[in-house]
Amino acid sequence: MKVLWVFAHPERRSLNGSLRDAGVRALEAAGHEVRQSDLYAMSWKAVADGGDFADTEPGARLTYAASSFRAFKGGSQMADVAAEQEKLMWADAVLIQFPLWWFSVPAILKGWLDRVLAAGWAYRVTDPANPKRSLRYGEGNLRGRRGMLIVTTGATAASLGPRGVAGDIDDLLFPVNYGVFWYTGMSALRPHLIHSANHVREDDYARLEAELVARLAILATDAPIPYRAQNGGDYDDDLVLKAAPGGEAAGLTATRLRPQS
Amino acid sequence: MKVLWVFAHPERRSLNGSLRDAGVRALEAAGHEVRQSDLYAMSWKAVADGGDFADTEPGARLTYAASSFRAFKGGSQMADVAAEQEKLMWADAVLIQFPLWWFSVPAILKGWLDRVLAAGWAYRVTDPANPKRSLRYGEGNLRGRRGMLIVTTGATAASLGPRGVAGDIDDLLFPVNYGVFWYTGMSALRPHLIHSANHVREDDYARLEAELVARLAILATDAPIPYRAQNGGDYDDDLVLKAAPGGEAAGLTATRLRPQS
Repeated sequence: MKVLWVFAHPERRSLNGSLRDAGVRALEAAGHEVRQSDLYAMSWKAVADGGDFADTEPGARLTYAASSFRAFKGGSQMADVAAEQEKLMWADAVLIQFPLWWFSVPAILKGWLDRVLAAGWAYRVTDPANPKRSLRYGEGNLRGRRGMLIVTTGATAASLGPRGVAGDIDDLLFPVNYGVFWYTGMSALRPHLIHSANHVREDDYARLEAELVARLAILATDAPIPYRAQNGGDYDDDLVLKAAPGGEAAGLTATRLRPQS
Repeated sequence: MKVLWVFAHPERRSLNGSLRDAGVRALEAAGHEVRQSDLYAMSWKAVADGGDFADTEPGARLTYAASSFRAFKGGSQMADVAAEQEKLMWADAVLIQFPLWWFSVPAILKGWLDRVLAAGWAYRVTDPANPKRSLRYGEGNLRGRRGMLIVTTGATAASLGPRGVAGDIDDLLFPVNYGVFWYTGMSALRPHLIHSANHVREDDYARLEAELVARLAILATDAPIPYRAQNGGDYDDDLVLKAAPGGEAAGLTATRLRPQS
């Protein structure tokens, strides 16, 4: 497989850095091709602003999505943005690794999503067969790829469980698993989680690296989260889930075809 | 009241900018004091990195939370970070306004949260009465303040409802309402939402401004989201919600004392 590894941690000499190095080594030893986007090492520009569009007239009112659409369609995107899009198109699998900060991704990673996922390419993708619905939620230009998050958390597994004080980690990661991977057409795999990361000692690194390597060994075969497709018949014209005899799921559970194993 | 208005939109001449201006005018006309953090106008540094700590030795391994703790306790934080903390301590109410990008906050706002909410102040706040539990989820240094999100969304209200294809907006905003406001001790109010923002015309601005102003009129009295307190007796020693005769709520619903009206 061709694997893109996106890494969003400020310190290479960390648990996250060691896990990344071990994972890349294992993938390459298994014959996979790996490319990386180490966002801190790249000094990634995190803030989406008018500076992203070379052809913006000075003083013109900025509508970011409209400018993004024009720049993508017109081939005038920033070079850093276009390079990341090329990596995503190249990849069969996309791994995104980060520490959970404030129940979400670090700003530098959010800025990678905000800037790389251009209008006309990752959203506002028209469906020639049905102009009233865009290609998203299971369809789109990144369809066919697999995505997996690798996440270190400060909190314990119990406190990030379904009844934990921090909220269910699956719900906290929904904006990326569903809102980015699935939205752009990618299949989202269960995340690989490393809990209580602040209490990990160097003695534990080898075990945690082995667990990650074992997980990567099933990257091509692991069953994705069974999210519903927007255009598969489950949603009405208002994009609300149709009433089903099976029950009245609400909230994020309703976006899944069946309970996750 | 003293109100801090945090604004995270790249264009002042936008729906978001007009709403902010109308809201600030109305608050001041009603006798409230308003201070602003206009993150784009401030060129806010979004990326949390070693550059946030003046006393970091060159080449030293960075542990961001540990450095944040030392800098906060030692009074050596960056001036921009300390200034935002002072505004938060000054405020009785904190409004955070942003467009929903990729199911979450824009990177510049995530970077404000990542950098301003320092260890030892917004997290890792020890409880003198109970060293095994920190002061968070309803307790902490920002207790007594009210927080409210003002959010424009590209999607419709229906598609961001409990059975909508985009997921329930309350779940998407949970990382900020619960994970930031409530975590640091603040009460979180229901968000003020402006849906289908890309289809709003200039003709609609006056109506949307009036709706926001009406909402701001109850800022001091509106009932907060009834989140459970970590240290109120509902959670066991593993910080898992104790079994209750009333039912088996799971997921983010379990963090609330009762269904939200």
